Amino acid sequence: MKYSYISHLYCPKCENTYDTKEQHQLCTCGSPLLVDYHWDELMKDVNPKDFSTRENTLWRYHELLPVEDERYVVSLGEGMTPLVAMPTLGKDMDVKYLYMKDEGLVPTGTFKARGAAVGISKAKEIGVEELAMPTNGNAGAAWALYAARAGIKSTIVMPIDAPVITRNEVALSGAKLYLVNGLISDAGKIVAKAVKDHNLYDASTLKEPYRIEGKKTMGLEIAEQMGWEMPDVILYPTGGGVGLIGIYKALKELKYLGWVKGKLPRLVAVQATGCAPIVKAWEEKKYESEFWPNSRTLAFGINVPKALGDFLVLDAIYKTEGCAIAIDDQSMIDEQAKIARLEGAFICPEGASTFVAIRRLREKGWIKEGETVVALNTGAGIKYPDTVKVNVPMLGKEDVI
Amino acid sequence: MKYSYISHLYCPKCENTYDTKEQHQLCTCGSPLLVDYHWDELMKDVNPKDFSTRENTLWRYHELLPVEDERYVVSLGEGMTPLVAMPTLGKDMDVKYLYMKDEGLVPTGTFKARGAAVGISKAKEIGVEELAMPTNGNAGAAWALYAARAGIKSTIVMPIDAPVITRNEVALSGAKLYLVNGLISDAGKIVAKAVKDHNLYDASTLKEPYRIEGKKTMGLEIAEQMGWEMPDVILYPTGGGVGLIGIYKALKELKYLGWVKGKLPRLVAVQATGCAPIVKAWEEKKYESEFWPNSRTLAFGINVPKALGDFLVLDAIYKTEGCAIAIDDQSMIDEQAKIARLEGAFICPEGASTFVAIRRLREKGWIKEGETVVALNTGAGIKYPDTVKVNVPMLGKEDVI
Repeated sequence: MKYSYISHLYCPKCENTYDTKEQHQLCTCGSPLLVDYHWDELMKDVNPKDFSTRENTLWRYHELLPVEDERYVVSLGEGMTPLVAMPTLGKDMDVKYLYMKDEGLVPTGTFKARGAAVGISKAKEIGVEELAMPTNGNAGAAWALYAARAGIKSTIVMPIDAPVITRNEVALSGAKLYLVNGLISDAGKIVAKAVKDHNLYDASTLKEPYRIEGKKTMGLEIAEQMGWEMPDVILYPTGGGVGLIGIYKALKELKYLGWVKGKLPRLVAVQATGCAPIVKAWEEKKYESEFWPNSRTLAFGINVPKALGDFLVLDAIYKTEGCAIAIDDQSMIDEQAKIARLEGAFICPEGASTFVAIRRLREKGWIKEGETVVALNTGAGIKYPDTVKVNVPMLGKEDVI
Repeated sequence: MKYSYISHLYCPKCENTYDTKEQHQLCTCGSPLLVDYHWDELMKDVNPKDFSTRENTLWRYHELLPVEDERYVVSLGEGMTPLVAMPTLGKDMDVKYLYMKDEGLVPTGTFKARGAAVGISKAKEIGVEELAMPTNGNAGAAWALYAARAGIKSTIVMPIDAPVITRNEVALSGAKLYLVNGLISDAGKIVAKAVKDHNLYDASTLKEPYRIEGKKTMGLEIAEQMGWEMPDVILYPTGGGVGLIGIYKALKELKYLGWVKGKLPRLVAVQATGCAPIVKAWEEKKYESEFWPNSRTLAFGINVPKALGDFLVLDAIYKTEGCAIAIDDQSMIDEQAKIARLEGAFICPEGASTFVAIRRLREKGWIKEGETVVALNTGAGIKYPDTVKVNVPMLGKEDVI
């Protein structure tokens, strides 16, 4: 019985393979690398029933994760987030079996903690001492904090407009934090140069292969929490798309292992109308997206004009007969308030976008009556203090109500 | 096998008892009421090993909770928060076995969700249709959101200085929210009058008996997560003190059931030097606290000048041979940063206060070498955006680092 059944890294484009004992970034062909496992051995040794008595973190799936020696696991208790039934909202949109996977309940308040926990743990195992990454906020916060826990130094570059709360998280972690008077793409250029100049490990989205494995655990958990049955549809707010790529990878792996049966769920990429390159590519039946100029949305987590893994996202959509849909900011905000009022959940605008998408897809009949639908809420509403505007009556001490 | 083994309500002061089928608030003598259970029956029917395969929420302990019919459970997936090892920080303060129970990972981002989940569920079961409460922020946010989920109307009154994020949470829930140009005590007076005028259920701290039961689950979880062994010391940031009262109640119940052995942990109430009525009472060996005038601390969650349950907090401290200690704001802030740097956890100032307390108590020898210590972090650092001040270098697009 091994802690991890990891086998090797492979390129989904050119099929080149790499050793997991060494530090690798992108494939020589420029594509992100994926992790493969010793499936036959794993199948023999592991029974999915084993998971139910394990600790309530994503590390319960350690055989399907890349860290080989448990001593390198860097954990703050991330994972096994609740799959919350949404019956009242479901009724409101005529979707009887509606669930929310709530990624607000993780360290740093967003799903980025999953990628950081697994990415940092593996980085520690392969001897990384210093890393660098550009960020729009939440990923940088998660990676900086997990790096601090691991004793790995980090350099984080963030646009001046990234949320102040994430800036505080990074600064507090002791990372070398720089703001840039520009966009995430400008931050990316500065990081690329620093990586080269100072020989740092590049932790940019998909430039290291292990973040996907962390995000994969969302798919593993959904399957386990549904009693190893598949829902019909899973919706994901899609910026860089790593969450969706990870969930698709998880479901394919579970299917190969025979732990789940039936058709894969239809995967839906939800984007903002102000930044919808994946939606455009899908509508045009293309396999790669184009850079989306002047992108703009208040859901800053999905403001990614061109994702490095766009072809993997589109592949997941096509293979599962899913779709891609863009939602306007105002509808997200309205849905966010409705969800709080009907279900008591205060979620982030990105998460709210998936519920608007469900509403639209149900109206069109794309989601059918009686189907089981899972929406991913990628972060806590409290992490987005500025998206809510309210007017509240003010009383004096002697007033009555 | 019953879902709950609840028996009756009793007054810890005058020993009067009450029926749990009816709505009760305080005892006629003015004391908060506590919940009792059919212990002998429970002992016969339930084995603590049963819990390990149950869902990862506080409802896994449903036999020890007051909701009798599972259909009334109102849950957003709260509970089973991680018990995180803090080895690096522990080394820094010479406490080898140091753990943090991280209550940031719950809906609404603070431990208040536990009291709200159980309190609202029981309120629904006993037919409450409308409730009211004053709040400094976090409790109101939790109760308003859970009430929304339950379909219970709520009226929340909050000082103008309460954190804006909690104001947004309450407003978004659809509650009737009022700000008052005054303190929590002024909000309390307005609520008391409204409760009387409009015949509302009073959900103020300890004025309904079930919130404690929700908070009790922190103690149950610590015991289960430690393999049904007791730590030596548990520290709690103490404002109203319900968390500490709840943990003490849990540990006594587990001991009575024979599920844990040995001495109860020494319970420590941690307060702010700007608001330390429990510490003062403990130093003077008193059984009740006095109102603390002009209270002031940036840890607004523990800014409670006189707690209704002060005598229960002091009782818990005396009976477990614990203590009470006050921490200054600057030390909390410094410790908050240290914890992020050494352990990658961004916690709230209240939570940080418990770690300062551990440092001081270890220096004094009150915490002994080799003892196992658990600190409660009552909320996520991201819920306190204004407590962190950082200076970050700014780059232009062409700059290099």
